[in-house]
Amino acid sequence: MAAPLRRYAMGVEYDGGEFSGWQRLVRPGEPDLRGEATVQSTLEDALSFVAGGRVDVTCAGRTDAGVHASCQVVHFDSSAQRDLRGWVLGTTSRLPPSVCVRWCVPVAADFHARFSARARRYRYRILNRSVRPALQRQYLTWERRPLDADAMHRAAQALLGENDFSAFRTVHCQAPHARRDLQYIGVRRDGEVVEMEVQANAFLHHMVRNIVGSLLMVGRGEQPEAWIGELLAGRDRTVAGPTAPSSGLVFVGPRYPADCQLPAEVTF
Amino acid sequence: MAAPLRRYAMGVEYDGGEFSGWQRLVRPGEPDLRGEATVQSTLEDALSFVAGGRVDVTCAGRTDAGVHASCQVVHFDSSAQRDLRGWVLGTTSRLPPSVCVRWCVPVAADFHARFSARARRYRYRILNRSVRPALQRQYLTWERRPLDADAMHRAAQALLGENDFSAFRTVHCQAPHARRDLQYIGVRRDGEVVEMEVQANAFLHHMVRNIVGSLLMVGRGEQPEAWIGELLAGRDRTVAGPTAPSSGLVFVGPRYPADCQLPAEVTF
Repeated sequence: MAAPLRRYAMGVEYDGGEFSGWQRLVRPGEPDLRGEATVQSTLEDALSFVAGGRVDVTCAGRTDAGVHASCQVVHFDSSAQRDLRGWVLGTTSRLPPSVCVRWCVPVAADFHARFSARARRYRYRILNRSVRPALQRQYLTWERRPLDADAMHRAAQALLGENDFSAFRTVHCQAPHARRDLQYIGVRRDGEVVEMEVQANAFLHHMVRNIVGSLLMVGRGEQPEAWIGELLAGRDRTVAGPTAPSSGLVFVGPRYPADCQLPAEVTF
Repeated sequence: MAAPLRRYAMGVEYDGGEFSGWQRLVRPGEPDLRGEATVQSTLEDALSFVAGGRVDVTCAGRTDAGVHASCQVVHFDSSAQRDLRGWVLGTTSRLPPSVCVRWCVPVAADFHARFSARARRYRYRILNRSVRPALQRQYLTWERRPLDADAMHRAAQALLGENDFSAFRTVHCQAPHARRDLQYIGVRRDGEVVEMEVQANAFLHHMVRNIVGSLLMVGRGEQPEAWIGELLAGRDRTVAGPTAPSSGLVFVGPRYPADCQLPAEVTF
């Protein structure tokens, strides 16, 4: 008799610069087209090897090409008998250097990496100096013109709360509506680096990078601080700033209620 | 009549993972052998293009293959009439993504990047968790066994002051003597990362990585804290810990007296 299916949650770290985004572009088990490797298919192939049979994963938040994750969360079902160390180290040993599994825990059968998450957190880092970066260039966006990080921080506070974020949504976004609850946004300078952190219940497609693109215009003095609130109220994507590059963006991870019994870093 | 030679100092940042170390391995102007690109030859080729004639550089501290630098300092002489912005941006535009010029300033004719420096500072970063890194892997060394960073810090204090560092010197070191003045050493934990910073008037070949290799043994509990002081006193390289990997090491930069009139980050 086959062992029963069990559901697991897994924390996954990846360097998005080496992938065409999270989402699998071909059918399960088919090889990615050359130059079109995705994190999902790479992870599923490694997991399937460890499980000894096909494993599909569902993630907390799909990331675009070039976007990094310090703790993406996925769930998957398997009847394979492996200890948790085996899932973590065995899967990691089958992954390229740009991906690793940080942890794996058994979860309830109704846990869902996407629908159980109550919030997502992103971080965006900008190197703000006259010369492009050499060190850390894989994890930074470069802005040569001086940025007023305090002005960016003040302007960003207009986004807090439950709002219609149509102004910061790509035209390709497939979400049924644009209302999101933005719980935290902060911009601060640490030497040459300006860092933004933002948390919401969920994000629209390109929403973080579109917010950064508009805040950069405030930071450079091209728009007043009040402009961000006006953009939000206008709900018109065509007047907001351009989408900021992907390299500076890290999906820090989702947050789940404590009763999901996940590691502290992804728990409220 | 040719313009007089002027001497310049330049701050250079590089990702050592893409180079076979600092030092040029072929004669000036000759192409590097395949897979043997050095930071020095790469920089000299770019500078020579901007100057419109051969330029050779002298650095504050040669770094080994794989070692990074956030602010290496070089000096060079040129009679080319370029503004400082031209030296910085023009040279950077001729460099690969793994190297950039941070600043360039005119200095006195007797300034010497190596001999005028009064101190050098290095930083070493260790990711201390059970799974290897994916993000930041280019800039970290990985240690899976738990490290006691406080014990490492206490043990390291035995190295302070002017001492004979023969125990931490590679057999290939060509320095005429092993006495160095170690001015600061600190080890601290920030989450999963254990970071060491160390400053001395100068360092022997592999000295930082050999100190880290021995401190790792203390951090893992394989040697008592007092062992570091005993190693120093014994002056015997064969009993110290192994040389730690290069990827975690960054040459933060040299420090010069204020009268050299260099940027604040490299001035005492």
